[in-house]
Amino acid sequence: MPSSTPLGGTHSRVYNFNAGPGALPLTVLERIRSELVNYGGTGMSVMEMSHRSSEFEDILTRAEQGLRRNLTIPEEYAVVFLQGGGSLQFAMIPMNLYVEGKPVDVLHTGVWTAKAMGELKGKAQYRLACTTEAERFRRLPRPEEIVFAPNASYIYLCTNNTIEGTEWGSLGTKFSDLKDVPLVADMSSDILSRSVDIRRFGLIFAGAQKNLGPSGVTIVIVRRDLAERANKNLPTIMQYRTHIKEGSLYHTPPTFAVYIVGLMMDWIDAEGGVAAITKRNEAKAKLLYEAIEVSGYYTCPVEKDSRSRMNIVFRIAGGNQSLEGEFVQQAAAAGLVGLAGHRSVGGIRASLYNAVTLGAVEALASFMREFQRTHG
Amino acid sequence: MPSSTPLGGTHSRVYNFNAGPGALPLTVLERIRSELVNYGGTGMSVMEMSHRSSEFEDILTRAEQGLRRNLTIPEEYAVVFLQGGGSLQFAMIPMNLYVEGKPVDVLHTGVWTAKAMGELKGKAQYRLACTTEAERFRRLPRPEEIVFAPNASYIYLCTNNTIEGTEWGSLGTKFSDLKDVPLVADMSSDILSRSVDIRRFGLIFAGAQKNLGPSGVTIVIVRRDLAERANKNLPTIMQYRTHIKEGSLYHTPPTFAVYIVGLMMDWIDAEGGVAAITKRNEAKAKLLYEAIEVSGYYTCPVEKDSRSRMNIVFRIAGGNQSLEGEFVQQAAAAGLVGLAGHRSVGGIRASLYNAVTLGAVEALASFMREFQRTHG
Repeated sequence: MPSSTPLGGTHSRVYNFNAGPGALPLTVLERIRSELVNYGGTGMSVMEMSHRSSEFEDILTRAEQGLRRNLTIPEEYAVVFLQGGGSLQFAMIPMNLYVEGKPVDVLHTGVWTAKAMGELKGKAQYRLACTTEAERFRRLPRPEEIVFAPNASYIYLCTNNTIEGTEWGSLGTKFSDLKDVPLVADMSSDILSRSVDIRRFGLIFAGAQKNLGPSGVTIVIVRRDLAERANKNLPTIMQYRTHIKEGSLYHTPPTFAVYIVGLMMDWIDAEGGVAAITKRNEAKAKLLYEAIEVSGYYTCPVEKDSRSRMNIVFRIAGGNQSLEGEFVQQAAAAGLVGLAGHRSVGGIRASLYNAVTLGAVEALASFMREFQRTHG
Repeated sequence: MPSSTPLGGTHSRVYNFNAGPGALPLTVLERIRSELVNYGGTGMSVMEMSHRSSEFEDILTRAEQGLRRNLTIPEEYAVVFLQGGGSLQFAMIPMNLYVEGKPVDVLHTGVWTAKAMGELKGKAQYRLACTTEAERFRRLPRPEEIVFAPNASYIYLCTNNTIEGTEWGSLGTKFSDLKDVPLVADMSSDILSRSVDIRRFGLIFAGAQKNLGPSGVTIVIVRRDLAERANKNLPTIMQYRTHIKEGSLYHTPPTFAVYIVGLMMDWIDAEGGVAAITKRNEAKAKLLYEAIEVSGYYTCPVEKDSRSRMNIVFRIAGGNQSLEGEFVQQAAAAGLVGLAGHRSVGGIRASLYNAVTLGAVEALASFMREFQRTHG
């Protein structure tokens, strides 16, 4: 437990390993609380403000500038705040970026790329540039296994696979020869967990509920010229250009969620920026993978080079479901929550998003040793 | 001011007449604040919970049950929590409910029905069952002016026009002969401000940010059989049936906004239910319209029978823009905010949503008298 008070006391917070929505920094939550009924002397909550007010426009600008600063987003990219999560992006991306006769090239690495393909079916021609499905997605494709079409509309990938526990490690090098085909990335679960070179991408999207804030707001970073590909007869709200032109105010944005994204950007600064966050994320992942490796009891099914720093999946005693259930339950009772693996794969999963502290991971490693001692 | 402390003190709240997002009850905000970092002893914020957790499923169920209770929603109607606001509904409704060869019948009463028609253009055949555009929407159509098609896909209307300040008064009687054509209603700005007979409608939608909570969540109430009209090849997320089948958990919902909708439903109960809310809304509107009528200085451009209880628009000295600007500015300085008319029409607008107290309206009437005394 983070403090010595028993769970259930109002000051007692759990260690939160949820896969998303997930942990937020306590300082951010405390800030939200402190200005909840009266934001900056306006006499109202952020939730009660007109989205056309100068106060909210400042909040929106701060959130966008924070993202631009922390992600080093060049001017030729627009940043918009949308609703509908990744699932709406699965529909919007082909509507806006697919060019008839040019296939979508998919790097198929798990459940989330499968969902994206589900929305291509019957609407856009697509092909697999690679897939590791035969190995149940326990690793990412090796560079030599990837075969791109010469004329793709775009290449689609998911940078971090929350369910399978894999993450593309060095995005810069693997796709360096694809200057003319835009790379479209679902970064929902590892955005801002490390630096990326935005210029390598045509479009990046991320639901906020892992590293950026609460659920209900989705960040889209899109090269301005690409947003002009879309047919103007698409529903207005489904065109990226609409939201770019209106500065995310085409319709009422999810104002409170946008405000929290801004606070998260300030928090990243206060923590030392993305460089410091990256370092801490590496330390957290290293600690947990090592605890697994040395145990001889816990095992990670993912091949070493493909392992995610964000979602660490492991099994107990080769996949003993009864022991795994006990582990999740006892951990929760001890104040370590959200450790059940995704219902489609089972096992254990610890999500170590930016707001999860090194202390939380140490507590988990310690609990794992104790569990092994008493059950191993 | 609500209290004697100066504006800017942390306990000083303004009177909030914003058109939406708008005022929320202070008791609801205080409740949110009290459980912000630790909800019900879970050791985490609602924002940090998995949407698949039993805690969040309880929150979601409570919000839905609260809506069902307060709106008396029959079992043959589904209630789903979506994202994207009214603007996404403008696109989704024809996608799901339009039948080729059967026009959409629109009751055209202002900017919001115009926007809905904008999304029909090039996608669905539609016609005007009536329009009061020639009179700049200063009244609603009279029953004898409405001519329905014999075979419409559905009839579309906006029950309350926030910009023009009109509201359909007796929805039950005007459309009683249309048993076979579903009525689709944008109730964004007057839902739960009074009782309605849900069975008269095929589909009702409302962004939460006026009477139901914060922006970022949209309530859709749809007759289950109608949701089956949609072509199954539509994007999955754009089909109502998807969200019905998955109980609003097809993808991550805007969890915090859903939680607040639930709190708002409890607040309505605590206030005496929709009957008491209706009565108070009538009293608030009566007070303000009377203050306008007796003044000989303020004028309401809307015909009496069409006047909205939610958004009360008025002009000063026949539409003196300089005086109106001064009014808005001085009112804000006195702690009465959000009184500027919509930028497309100008003038003054006071939005009297459920959370706006009678005291707030009395303060406004009093300010109006004082302004007239010093400027009239």
